[in-house]
Amino acid sequence: MPKVVIVGAGLVGALNACYFAQRGWDVEVYEYRRDIRTMEHVAGRSINLALSYRGKSALEAVGLKDYIVEQGVEMHARLVHNKDGKTYSRQPYGQPGEHIVSINRRHLNEVMITQAEQCSKVKFFFEHKVRSVDLDKKELIVTFTGGSKIPRFGSPQSTKESDIHVKGDLVIACDGAYSSVRRSLATQPRFDYSQEYIGHGYIELNILPKNGEFALEPNVFHLWPRGNFTLIALANRDKTFTVTIFAPFEDFASKMSTPNDVESFFRENFPDAYELLGRSHLLDTFHRVRPQPLVSIKCRPHHFGDFVLLTGDAAHAMVPFYGQGMNCGFEDCLVLKEALDACNDDIPKSLAYYSDKRVKDAHTINDLAMYNYEELKDLVNHRSYKLRKKIDLFLNRFFADKWMPLYSMVTFSRMPYHKIVEERKRQDKVLSIFRRGLAITTAAVLVGLYCARKKGVL
Amino acid sequence: MPKVVIVGAGLVGALNACYFAQRGWDVEVYEYRRDIRTMEHVAGRSINLALSYRGKSALEAVGLKDYIVEQGVEMHARLVHNKDGKTYSRQPYGQPGEHIVSINRRHLNEVMITQAEQCSKVKFFFEHKVRSVDLDKKELIVTFTGGSKIPRFGSPQSTKESDIHVKGDLVIACDGAYSSVRRSLATQPRFDYSQEYIGHGYIELNILPKNGEFALEPNVFHLWPRGNFTLIALANRDKTFTVTIFAPFEDFASKMSTPNDVESFFRENFPDAYELLGRSHLLDTFHRVRPQPLVSIKCRPHHFGDFVLLTGDAAHAMVPFYGQGMNCGFEDCLVLKEALDACNDDIPKSLAYYSDKRVKDAHTINDLAMYNYEELKDLVNHRSYKLRKKIDLFLNRFFADKWMPLYSMVTFSRMPYHKIVEERKRQDKVLSIFRRGLAITTAAVLVGLYCARKKGVL
Repeated sequence: MPKVVIVGAGLVGALNACYFAQRGWDVEVYEYRRDIRTMEHVAGRSINLALSYRGKSALEAVGLKDYIVEQGVEMHARLVHNKDGKTYSRQPYGQPGEHIVSINRRHLNEVMITQAEQCSKVKFFFEHKVRSVDLDKKELIVTFTGGSKIPRFGSPQSTKESDIHVKGDLVIACDGAYSSVRRSLATQPRFDYSQEYIGHGYIELNILPKNGEFALEPNVFHLWPRGNFTLIALANRDKTFTVTIFAPFEDFASKMSTPNDVESFFRENFPDAYELLGRSHLLDTFHRVRPQPLVSIKCRPHHFGDFVLLTGDAAHAMVPFYGQGMNCGFEDCLVLKEALDACNDDIPKSLAYYSDKRVKDAHTINDLAMYNYEELKDLVNHRSYKLRKKIDLFLNRFFADKWMPLYSMVTFSRMPYHKIVEERKRQDKVLSIFRRGLAITTAAVLVGLYCARKKGVL
Repeated sequence: MPKVVIVGAGLVGALNACYFAQRGWDVEVYEYRRDIRTMEHVAGRSINLALSYRGKSALEAVGLKDYIVEQGVEMHARLVHNKDGKTYSRQPYGQPGEHIVSINRRHLNEVMITQAEQCSKVKFFFEHKVRSVDLDKKELIVTFTGGSKIPRFGSPQSTKESDIHVKGDLVIACDGAYSSVRRSLATQPRFDYSQEYIGHGYIELNILPKNGEFALEPNVFHLWPRGNFTLIALANRDKTFTVTIFAPFEDFASKMSTPNDVESFFRENFPDAYELLGRSHLLDTFHRVRPQPLVSIKCRPHHFGDFVLLTGDAAHAMVPFYGQGMNCGFEDCLVLKEALDACNDDIPKSLAYYSDKRVKDAHTINDLAMYNYEELKDLVNHRSYKLRKKIDLFLNRFFADKWMPLYSMVTFSRMPYHKIVEERKRQDKVLSIFRRGLAITTAAVLVGLYCARKKGVL
């Protein structure tokens, strides 16, 4: 059986391990951090995860879907909080019953590692940092970092002595946005690559339970859109909420630099959230944590030679505003499975097939996520936006197959992302023809009425 | 005096060394190759250089302009070779007297290193490869590679023992498109970066002198545009021509893979050039050399913290179709000088000032170079394109200050690149109003004539 070397035991790496275990391959997973199951506190971003159809489908194929969904909290709508701190507007995500699931990243990761480990063909190597890939020799240069401090991304290391050379038939890089595999191969000719940071950063906060109960309605996605900045809150099973503020870095520096500023900024813009967050938690967090950047990464192709494939954030880190980062990464596993099936496990052919299929979809969801950033910040408050949402859901109710809203195609289907954009353009065209038809009809009726009145018929 | 560490002794690195020597700073230059003056054959791309106004201005400030220009060959026009191998069309670059200069890269580089070395404050360290930059410690990690084979870009090295830690007040990275300084810092938060390969590759050829004379007219840029592929030729002082074919990689693979294919491809598409290149030189080159890729690189900002600045190709490698790669890199030196002057040698302020000024210009010339790719391949043959060129030059003759053709603004001025695009948009608007006015006047005259004839006046 071929041997696959997976770099990274995060969400996508662990799921890939489950897939290849199921396929009967030998699997080795190299992760530079300690085993997440033994860690007290996990550093790094979380921004609660919203599991939707693509992610569920990928989990289902390895028998994990139901268990994971049970551990989450369903969200059926966006609940938009107004500035007065009292009134709301509710925007359902889809038809009744359609929902996404708020999931705890750490818990999900732990479950998946444990699941993969149950297969004797899978071996995990924690505290093993992959430094580089040699395409000619088909090997990875790995360093054991055990006992040392966890290295920062990109920091130079000097443990040359302990270099390990790892061989395999296929390498799947799932080592995230700052992928060291990708960096090591980025000078390969004809590898297109871009990384783009947005002007906004984020800080995570928490709302604790109130009298042992959820302090806010749990089964919705809470949203405080305020033009150029926004606050969101997602429920957890333990009845807390993970809250995230997104704002321009300049605003963090100018409007939220002193405790007084933070307090009055939250009081003024998110009065209801402020009450629930509590002054001391808010100020303590802002004192402790600096706003984190958000990056969007695109590359083409996703594979190198017939040896390395990038999946998940390593191939297409995106801004978190469509809740598709994890779902797209999970779907990568499914697409790879489909590619291997279609090419009878021929690795070179499968990699070319995968890139050919997946790159355009990855680029599209990256762009959609960037676009949804506008939506979450502000658009949700616009009348035309809300009207379109209603028209889409109305038409969808009667023509389920023929008319799916954009959000539903992304979230509740596995339609390839690039096809979704084509379909959306078609819908836009239909609506525009309809609008023009309506205008002409109205004009004709008005002219008719006017003539009729003039001739004394009316 | 502050100490500047320059990474790379190529064209931009050597010129920067001259600038900082003039400024009185201590200068150390680290170059991973051997001293180009001691090398028998220089590997890597050349694509003959076309020196124009920006490059000349930058050379002038260190007293090198006249000497360098004398060593080159003036080019006053494009000479477009038709497919019959016999007829041409001539497109002047500007007004009579305006020209660009074909320069030999190696010679230019040698002159500049020698010039910089004449200052006792400048030290060159050849065969010293910069591995990484430590922003916190403000130092570079450099390895002496002397005696070893010249390393390939991106290939891992294992001479840990000989690491040298170099300190300085400012680092200028001039280490080209595959900059190791940039790579070492690419994971810094909020550093936007993109690399994009075009679908075309290139191969370089040579035309030797004929009876001791230039085999083609020397003072023009020779061009064989054939739709999706193109051939160019630039004269050298030794009466040879450097010839470059640009074509899609697929065409190299499908239409130029066997000697017979190469021969008939050149015979059919470039009959006159084929005769001058000669069959054996052509086939030998195609046998020896594979088509090289062309990359376009953008990043933002161009500096890291208050310590590192990227200039030249390290900051903005571009496709070679506007002949601005070197000119823009040289102008970087001038802009940096202006920044340091404006900020009284305050390094952090100067770097911020420089990025703020230069990034948008670098992005613009990158885009223009990509656009000129279309022009060189095909557009030069279109009637509307030629007409516009003529209108531009006509208006420019009478309104020199008010109307400069796009090409002239790029090539014969130091107008910031981003302003050129604004100016071009203004010109487009003026011409479109003029065109519309002309159409209305024509229509009015025709209607007038028609009415006059109907009434029997005519």
